[in-house]
Amino acid sequence: MKFKQIIEENESRHGRNFDLFIQFTIVLSLVSFAAATLPDITPETRELLKIIELISIFIFTAEYVARIYVADKKLRFIFSFYGLIDLFAILPFYLATTVDLRAIRILRLMRLFRAFKLLRYSRAIQRLHSALKIAREELLLFSVVAGMAIFFAAVGIYYFENEAQPEEFASVFHSLWWAVATLTTVGYGDVYPITAGGKVFTFFVLMVGLGIVSVPTGLIASALSSARELERRQPGSQNEQNAACQLNETPD
Amino acid sequence: MKFKQIIEENESRHGRNFDLFIQFTIVLSLVSFAAATLPDITPETRELLKIIELISIFIFTAEYVARIYVADKKLRFIFSFYGLIDLFAILPFYLATTVDLRAIRILRLMRLFRAFKLLRYSRAIQRLHSALKIAREELLLFSVVAGMAIFFAAVGIYYFENEAQPEEFASVFHSLWWAVATLTTVGYGDVYPITAGGKVFTFFVLMVGLGIVSVPTGLIASALSSARELERRQPGSQNEQNAACQLNETPD
Amino acid sequence: MKFKQIIEENESRHGRNFDLFIQFTIVLSLVSFAAATLPDITPETRELLKIIELISIFIFTAEYVARIYVADKKLRFIFSFYGLIDLFAILPFYLATTVDLRAIRILRLMRLFRAFKLLRYSRAIQRLHSALKIAREELLLFSVVAGMAIFFAAVGIYYFENEAQPEEFASVFHSLWWAVATLTTVGYGDVYPITAGGKVFTFFVLMVGLGIVSVPTGLIASALSSARELERRQPGSQNEQNAACQLNETPD
Amino acid sequence: MKFKQIIEENESRHGRNFDLFIQFTIVLSLVSFAAATLPDITPETRELLKIIELISIFIFTAEYVARIYVADKKLRFIFSFYGLIDLFAILPFYLATTVDLRAIRILRLMRLFRAFKLLRYSRAIQRLHSALKIAREELLLFSVVAGMAIFFAAVGIYYFENEAQPEEFASVFHSLWWAVATLTTVGYGDVYPITAGGKVFTFFVLMVGLGIVSVPTGLIASALSSARELERRQPGSQNEQNAACQLNETPD
Repeated sequence: MKFKQIIEENESRHGRNFDLFIQFTIVLSLVSFAAATLPDITPETRELLKIIELISIFIFTAEYVARIYVADKKLRFIFSFYGLIDLFAILPFYLATTVDLRAIRILRLMRLFRAFKLLRYSRAIQRLHSALKIAREELLLFSVVAGMAIFFAAVGIYYFENEAQPEEFASVFHSLWWAVATLTTVGYGDVYPITAGGKVFTFFVLMVGLGIVSVPTGLIASALSSARELERRQPGSQNEQNAACQLNETPD
Repeated sequence: MKFKQIIEENESRHGRNFDLFIQFTIVLSLVSFAAATLPDITPETRELLKIIELISIFIFTAEYVARIYVADKKLRFIFSFYGLIDLFAILPFYLATTVDLRAIRILRLMRLFRAFKLLRYSRAIQRLHSALKIAREELLLFSVVAGMAIFFAAVGIYYFENEAQPEEFASVFHSLWWAVATLTTVGYGDVYPITAGGKVFTFFVLMVGLGIVSVPTGLIASALSSARELERRQPGSQNEQNAACQLNETPD
Repeated sequence: MKFKQIIEENESRHGRNFDLFIQFTIVLSLVSFAAATLPDITPETRELLKIIELISIFIFTAEYVARIYVADKKLRFIFSFYGLIDLFAILPFYLATTVDLRAIRILRLMRLFRAFKLLRYSRAIQRLHSALKIAREELLLFSVVAGMAIFFAAVGIYYFENEAQPEEFASVFHSLWWAVATLTTVGYGDVYPITAGGKVFTFFVLMVGLGIVSVPTGLIASALSSARELERRQPGSQNEQNAACQLNETPD
Repeated sequence: MKFKQIIEENESRHGRNFDLFIQFTIVLSLVSFAAATLPDITPETRELLKIIELISIFIFTAEYVARIYVADKKLRFIFSFYGLIDLFAILPFYLATTVDLRAIRILRLMRLFRAFKLLRYSRAIQRLHSALKIAREELLLFSVVAGMAIFFAAVGIYYFENEAQPEEFASVFHSLWWAVATLTTVGYGDVYPITAGGKVFTFFVLMVGLGIVSVPTGLIASALSSARELERRQPGSQNEQNAACQLNETPD
């Protein structure tokens, strides 16, 4: 019974330590994944990375087995979101020894699924979920409108700049790269308009486009505030008493 | 009667399928528009694009005729916003066979009107409309103030950089290009101040200007939240019960 | 009496036309100011610009005299904000004929004061004013904190990059240019870290700094919403009935 | 008694002057710190900077001694946040005369602690503190998710661009530099994708990533509004009567 609490809850000291240990292993495993791509890697480091990989696979496998063992409804856990993530985090390793070599690269990429294990420990993920539900329609609308804005910007700049820069603005598809880099304000500087018409067009595209492309971010932020409000109202979430924003409670 | 429901509503399964089919045709037609601008296009691909264009024209024409047929007030539909969009989406094709060749390029651009047909399917467009109405005055004010900020920035940098970079900052108009790219934080890197005075001036321009130029985005996002609130209050919009933000309802 | 209404109010048709006429003259005068800086300007254009300047000076002078004439308290208008702006908009022209030539350049810049005349026509400027009052303290705090963040970023990058790029990061002052361009996300690309330490430092600077430097914008936007709320509550501002956000009214 | 008020409070005129004097000394001392890094500095200027440093050390030491002297609980002040900052602001100077030369560079950097002394004078820092408490969970969540987004972007671009640009995208760590510069929209332009696959991948990364990476800023801004609301409700904070947003008070 206590074993189950350590693994599934994080209210006891042992439970928190277990969670921290798993999180540390996830991060270590992701860092070693990235380190393995370094070009000038010594054989000793490569050996060390392999050992780290073996140890983390062992830990994740033990965690997966333990989670199945303590689950009340075992099949339900196995096919739940986090159950599948836990499985995908270790599966590539076991498959890599049986399948032929060509599939290994994709299997290695599947190790990245481990990152999603980090989300389990965040209670706020539920809040994000309800925030996305609140702003669902606007987000969809602004995705469509933002897509249209980027497409129109690409078509427009293509007509202005195609003649002056036939390489950089070779087609509407090539111009899309400029439109994305500009409307997200990244502005690498590898392509930019040089004609007067193209510059004036860019001016208007930016004036209108920025308001469109960056609105979704504001929507998510304001929906998150609404979701926090909503959650605070429901009974059982009283651990935010002192800091919570009491926007709508009558002060009497 | 059922035919009318399929075309005008999207609550039945057939209605939703009809909408999805039209949306798919719109996107396909826009992609083929963009593909036609590719420089190294084979005759076979060009043939394929022509066929796609013919098919989508046929579908849009059939849709337009059907919408007129099912409309209760036919003239009203024809001169409504979406009725005109539907017409402009097919008109260029029929005109291109009758008018002389020079006008064809502009007619081809008119095919982009099809993108606006996508908006029909979004119920949230109404909400955007009322959000713009809520924040109308501030948006107008900040457009004027943002225009002033960009103009002042261009005049200032012209006086600082004109001597050091007579090519890039040749006049206030040339400097406007820098002002737009900087205050929207795109920063291509094709023009930037090199004098100490110009850099210090840029520092102050950014400190003040960013707050001005990027406020409209925040205004739209917060007005959208207000519009969602407003809509939720009105009777008949109860399909958001579980996720809606209940900011102002007394919890008793 | 009717003359006074035309000039001071914009509710009648004549009043609105008068306002539009003045606004058009302001914009024309600013465009001709910018056009005068163009390098390859023909004598005919220069002549035209001079005539435009003379006409706008005449219009602004007539407007200024008329505003004094219709004002109930003439001295109070002359020393009010808009009264002084109106004076500064025409003063440089009259001074330029009396003072020596060296001061003319600065006098020409003073013509830019005309842009502020545009603000008179915006009723929303009052709302911006109360929004700035609402968020005054946070804006001040975040200006100090943002200044500190930029200074710390400059000192840090100086220590990381000074040896590798002694030209670009010659001193903390030189590094400030990089810090401003980076934390405002402009990123011209004229200076950027090349050492591993400098890049890792930039990563942390961006993670922390963005949250600091771009908060003021969010503050202004949310304060503007609050100001709109506040205004709507006060009696006499009922022209926003249909669109206003009714966040806090009980729906019964 | 009056001496204590001047130092610890800023309600009297002398108290405000004392605060302004200390703030001026802090800024002067930081500017002279930055000036000392200038490459072509004359011996006279260096002498001047030394004198400024000596004077500010003298002022800060006097301030520190005075604050201890007037504190009711002296030990508590010494080990308080501001007490330690005050100590660290002067300690490096006194240590530099006793320790060996190698540690001096780090000691010099410690002079930057003086900047934190500026925070003492901001009453709004308390509000920021409670804002961070309100949005604590979302900020933590979005830090984790933003970290994951940057990591995934780096891994993805590594696989797309590694072959085409083996120098710039040499490993996942090298690609992280691109991911940070892109997702924060800085976009220096020193590294960017050149393959079609990399550009399409960047498009999707930006569409999803921007919403994730820039949400925390929106969260801080909206939490600050909530914190202002909260503070205004509590008795004793009535100095914001005229401008405060009365969002939740019934107007009757």
